[in-house]
Amino acid sequence: MHTRLQPSPEPCFLTAAEAATRIREGRLTSETLIRSCIERIEARDPLVKAWLYLDKAQAIATARELDKRPSLGALHGLPIGVKDMIDTADMPTTYNSPVFQHHRPARDAACVAVARLSGAVILGKTDTVEFAAAGRRAATRNPKNFAHTPGGSSSGSGAAVGDRQVQLAFGTQTGGSHIRPASFNGIYGLKPTWGSVSREGAKQYSNMLDTIGWYGRSVDDLALVASAFRLHAVGEVAVPEASALRVAYCRTPFWEKIEPAGERAFAVACDRLASAGVKLTELTLPRPFGGMFEAQNTIMMGEGRASFLDAALEFGDRLHQDFHDRVENKPGITPTAMIAAYDLAAACRREFEALFANFDAVLAPASPGEAPEGSYNTGDHVFNAMWTLLHVPCIGIPCMTGPKGLPVGVQIVAPRYSDARLLATAAALAPIIDQETARYVADA
Amino acid sequence: MHTRLQPSPEPCFLTAAEAATRIREGRLTSETLIRSCIERIEARDPLVKAWLYLDKAQAIATARELDKRPSLGALHGLPIGVKDMIDTADMPTTYNSPVFQHHRPARDAACVAVARLSGAVILGKTDTVEFAAAGRRAATRNPKNFAHTPGGSSSGSGAAVGDRQVQLAFGTQTGGSHIRPASFNGIYGLKPTWGSVSREGAKQYSNMLDTIGWYGRSVDDLALVASAFRLHAVGEVAVPEASALRVAYCRTPFWEKIEPAGERAFAVACDRLASAGVKLTELTLPRPFGGMFEAQNTIMMGEGRASFLDAALEFGDRLHQDFHDRVENKPGITPTAMIAAYDLAAACRREFEALFANFDAVLAPASPGEAPEGSYNTGDHVFNAMWTLLHVPCIGIPCMTGPKGLPVGVQIVAPRYSDARLLATAAALAPIIDQETARYVADA
Repeated sequence: MHTRLQPSPEPCFLTAAEAATRIREGRLTSETLIRSCIERIEARDPLVKAWLYLDKAQAIATARELDKRPSLGALHGLPIGVKDMIDTADMPTTYNSPVFQHHRPARDAACVAVARLSGAVILGKTDTVEFAAAGRRAATRNPKNFAHTPGGSSSGSGAAVGDRQVQLAFGTQTGGSHIRPASFNGIYGLKPTWGSVSREGAKQYSNMLDTIGWYGRSVDDLALVASAFRLHAVGEVAVPEASALRVAYCRTPFWEKIEPAGERAFAVACDRLASAGVKLTELTLPRPFGGMFEAQNTIMMGEGRASFLDAALEFGDRLHQDFHDRVENKPGITPTAMIAAYDLAAACRREFEALFANFDAVLAPASPGEAPEGSYNTGDHVFNAMWTLLHVPCIGIPCMTGPKGLPVGVQIVAPRYSDARLLATAAALAPIIDQETARYVADA
Repeated sequence: MHTRLQPSPEPCFLTAAEAATRIREGRLTSETLIRSCIERIEARDPLVKAWLYLDKAQAIATARELDKRPSLGALHGLPIGVKDMIDTADMPTTYNSPVFQHHRPARDAACVAVARLSGAVILGKTDTVEFAAAGRRAATRNPKNFAHTPGGSSSGSGAAVGDRQVQLAFGTQTGGSHIRPASFNGIYGLKPTWGSVSREGAKQYSNMLDTIGWYGRSVDDLALVASAFRLHAVGEVAVPEASALRVAYCRTPFWEKIEPAGERAFAVACDRLASAGVKLTELTLPRPFGGMFEAQNTIMMGEGRASFLDAALEFGDRLHQDFHDRVENKPGITPTAMIAAYDLAAACRREFEALFANFDAVLAPASPGEAPEGSYNTGDHVFNAMWTLLHVPCIGIPCMTGPKGLPVGVQIVAPRYSDARLLATAAALAPIIDQETARYVADA
């Protein structure tokens, strides 16, 4: 190899957007990309344990077919992992539940179908907390330190993208299941506006909360998938100059739960933005927002009563006690509490968006700090629950490495249905906040 | 036969609650009941066309098995029809769509599973408007007059219960698809509080609106199914004396759409209640409620963009243009309109419930009047859309027969999560409002 010529990285290390460009320009085949990902998985996944199911031959065969035909869409030739509580017609879907080990849905979930019909290669199914809710935890380990959780419930999707085993993966968020693992794995994640991506075929936990999201390794990766899902105005908003942006940093009413590493990441993000000329102001949310964490829990538990009734009746003792507890309303959620929670959320949605006249994005913690040790505790969703219940789009952005060598991210948030503008804002802010992801290949 | 001894009616004419009692007491077998329903279907359905799929042998075999074993639950031995946009593992599920004629789900929808595990015999699949949304209409005809619609989208479920082909059936409501057919078919219907029954496995149209409901031939029938679904406090609320009840009759902001038959039914219901000593007061909803019809449409169309994207990509020209129109946002729904609609709904929910300090139920029209002629127009959901978006429980109650010989009902409504109290209120009011259903057997 010539000196001074940077060796081309293994395709598995490319971002999805970079890989898409190379495929489009004929400089990379989908088959080469998929083979590189599979090689990475074979080398790493015996320890990371991100995948519950992988059909290498099928993925390669699909890639070959895609290489022969004109582009199907935004995701042509790109591999994507699917959280295993989302249905796939050609792979098992276990929900990581002992009672669904042999389940094989007849149809793809809507999000899987959209990805597939936009040219994606469904690489396999990633481990998850049982039903993305409670019960059994994923076996997945944090790729940066196997003694730690990758977060959850989107454990395998977060770890697989973080470990460069795949460029893209679907996750879901009901409490903090999507953005928290983004933080813990040093990756990008979009939780789009509630209701803008069909949840059909994803295991249901809470009508009012469940949201499909996706992981990538850059803002462009997130935008690529957003364009496949036709999110409102995606691709139509120009990336602004960072110095023209006004960002409100918001410690949230839950700041007492921040850990030193999370506090540091938040401060680092603010400092970097200020240095780059971004106008920063502090946002202190009005008092009622302090009730949003409890409101999210009330709604999640209250709606969970209905969501697990069929499984409780069908599987009895074979179903984890956590789900029986929900069906039997062990937390004692009352109708009055449910109504109060719904109504508080609605009032806070209006109020949050009214505040937006003065800035372009809210910057907030994405997790209390680094990923906890062990595999049972997937981390606290205290910095995510409010945003889920507000139905607003959130983008997780990597920021720094904590004292334990684990990543810690932040998130930016915007009003409902402004996903496109938030993606453009993220494209301007991410290179400032995230000064490490770009060095990943060199570090690897 | 002895004179003065009333002949026992054919089992198909019993209400679900009556049949359940007889089965429990050993005076009726599930097999006899199912055979009677099948006989009725064979005699009537070639003209009514309520069913898309029926497996008589399987239903009889299931009933025989149930007859041999101890009660599984509230619905033991009772037949139930399932709207064909709700998944069944042992029957096709076509969504009445040309592109899903050979679809066979791997699992029962949650509501089907709960019914089955509570002892119900899944009798078959009933015709529906395509995806319970738009496109192809059901072939079903109004059993009282074949030239008229039975309403929709729960067309087959409404007609089958109305025609005494089955005691119970599942429907769904996104606009007015459940309570309006109840009115048009002279039957009882419960649309429970949004979020209290799992929608998993029912075709998705709108996250914020879709609600599973059920039909029966009495309030007791509705309560029986409600108990199988463990709705909050069902069975714990005593039926009050009618004279102790305070009912607010509400013409709604949409009264200009009422037809003479609907106006008459509403007046008849009020008169009968007043005569029985029920305290009546008029409720005029505050001005913002006038925007709820449009808000419901905005949310339904706006969320429909995501719901039909996968089918639009998969089936292209083979999918009805109605669904492409939604995906491509032909109605031109803006983010601003979506947010305004969500926020109006939330404000009206609070306001509606604040009004409830003064009464026990709201009485409102269930449809503009009798069922329209033809099969394409399934009727106007103008008297249903607001209640769907309010997330409140609604019970359709038959009231009278209109000038065309078709039934017209009314509905009663109560705050979110007060389904149990609404059922108890309905049990007190229904015998007063509905003085015709009781005579059905004699008329038949």
